[in-house]
Amino acid sequence: MDEFALIRQFFRQGRQGHQGASGGQGVVLGPGDDGAILTPTPGCELVMSLDTLISGRHFPEDMPAEDIGWRSLAVNLSDLAAMGATPRWCLLSLSLPVADAEWLAAFCEGFQALARQADIALVGGDTVRGPLTITVQVTGEVPAGRALRRSGARPGDRLCIAGVPGEAAAGLAAWQAGARTGALTSRFCRPAPQLALGQKLRGIASACIDISDGLAADLGHILEESGVGAELSLAQLPCSPALAEWAASQPEDALARVQLAGGDDYLLLFTLMPGLNLPRDAVQIGRIRSEPGLQVLGADGELLPALPLGWDHFRT
Amino acid sequence: MDEFALIRQFFRQGRQGHQGASGGQGVVLGPGDDGAILTPTPGCELVMSLDTLISGRHFPEDMPAEDIGWRSLAVNLSDLAAMGATPRWCLLSLSLPVADAEWLAAFCEGFQALARQADIALVGGDTVRGPLTITVQVTGEVPAGRALRRSGARPGDRLCIAGVPGEAAAGLAAWQAGARTGALTSRFCRPAPQLALGQKLRGIASACIDISDGLAADLGHILEESGVGAELSLAQLPCSPALAEWAASQPEDALARVQLAGGDDYLLLFTLMPGLNLPRDAVQIGRIRSEPGLQVLGADGELLPALPLGWDHFRT
Repeated sequence: MDEFALIRQFFRQGRQGHQGASGGQGVVLGPGDDGAILTPTPGCELVMSLDTLISGRHFPEDMPAEDIGWRSLAVNLSDLAAMGATPRWCLLSLSLPVADAEWLAAFCEGFQALARQADIALVGGDTVRGPLTITVQVTGEVPAGRALRRSGARPGDRLCIAGVPGEAAAGLAAWQAGARTGALTSRFCRPAPQLALGQKLRGIASACIDISDGLAADLGHILEESGVGAELSLAQLPCSPALAEWAASQPEDALARVQLAGGDDYLLLFTLMPGLNLPRDAVQIGRIRSEPGLQVLGADGELLPALPLGWDHFRT
Repeated sequence: MDEFALIRQFFRQGRQGHQGASGGQGVVLGPGDDGAILTPTPGCELVMSLDTLISGRHFPEDMPAEDIGWRSLAVNLSDLAAMGATPRWCLLSLSLPVADAEWLAAFCEGFQALARQADIALVGGDTVRGPLTITVQVTGEVPAGRALRRSGARPGDRLCIAGVPGEAAAGLAAWQAGARTGALTSRFCRPAPQLALGQKLRGIASACIDISDGLAADLGHILEESGVGAELSLAQLPCSPALAEWAASQPEDALARVQLAGGDDYLLLFTLMPGLNLPRDAVQIGRIRSEPGLQVLGADGELLPALPLGWDHFRT
């Protein structure tokens, strides 16, 4: 038996599952032809992104297949969230050393669980034999002219976040130390793209990005694209009992390090014009300034020295 | 210096180049944010496809970077051609062991040369460190309801092709025997997606596919999806002086083998209702029948034994 028949079966499942709902999903033709045929929504613009995950680099080699499936879609959906887009369709390229039925079933389960939750249809893809590598391309839609960008932050805007930065990096550190369960490793393995928040921020946020490389590094992208600077207060960064407990067993600066430089959180970082109400669950963590650069205030309000933004030893 | 800065520069070039023409291309925002923002054409459906090429598997490891760039876009554009779609936007995922400036410049030159020719805009992508692997996602547009599919072939339809099947497989065989120039290796290294033909076939062809796995195998997909069979005549398959010359130095059945089972041609294979005129340069090579299965007539009109469609020793 052709061992990749299994994979085709997976894609076909997506095809049948979504053809039943093809009206709502805009799927005229799903997987199985040379291309998918899709109906865009009148009055909307498309938002497209694509991300590749390599085993051992973007996730630990021993991560469960179900988590890998979830995660490979999640990091892409987070890009749609950062643009304020509504997910519509995705394509998947799966490079596998061998077609292991059990692994594949688990991968699909994780992938499809998030796809159902985010209401995105898998409409096509490619499967090849090679080192374990996953590339997902996502398309979302946004009312014309309403997409969020990195470039709109203005001096005086409030810098905001809704969630606890650093949990994913702490979760990865815990994983590398042997932990396989717990709130932190779960934050690393199963990022939850903030799609509803992103859509709510349309017309409200002046700039938005998702935190994949670390809070400071991704804030840097907003500052660069907007031509502004920012002041960020460590004391205002949300923390959680799990993160605090992890930090208690680490060197003194570990909390600040994972919160500022830890990647993989996939939280939205956004700026709000003064006077606008914060969305529910969001907190202000700083302010946009006209002076370029990032100024970080420590827990006691003291100015911290320039940050080494390139920290990446938390990344696999 | 961050060695991947070079790659970002490449994407930015695409961004600026295409922002100048953003009206025509429908590119509201190109590479550099979390996602690209694109304007679909009213009244059109989207056609999407994605293909991954792995070094040493989908192309020889010593293929020039410029050819790899061209080829990675070409195989995707061929899917759009097979659907009758007009190319619009593409995203590129590039996994590279090292960021070699010279290699990268050549890759980009090949990729962009075909992108300009096909009028498709590179609007985003991802670059990671890993084994040399290229994934390209393409989006095209087609007037609503007019996309070509594999499933519409009916008994009596003429089976047609425009080009010489087998040249790419012969070119790969020549490459593996040491050839680096010549018409056949060029056909393998630089496939020319038949975009104009695909668009011309809208409303005319009852079914269409591009030949990537070999004429017989891809015809098999049309037959399966359409629920029909076909008769194919070896004597009617177009040949070229270059292919004939190559075959003259090969075992007797080599010509039939590369023409029927050789992959990588990226020619359109399509069916026409009886009575319709053949497009220019197209020839009839067989006919659709209601009896299932593929019947191949030899050069003297004799019926050939059942074909081993799984031949794949021409593929790297």
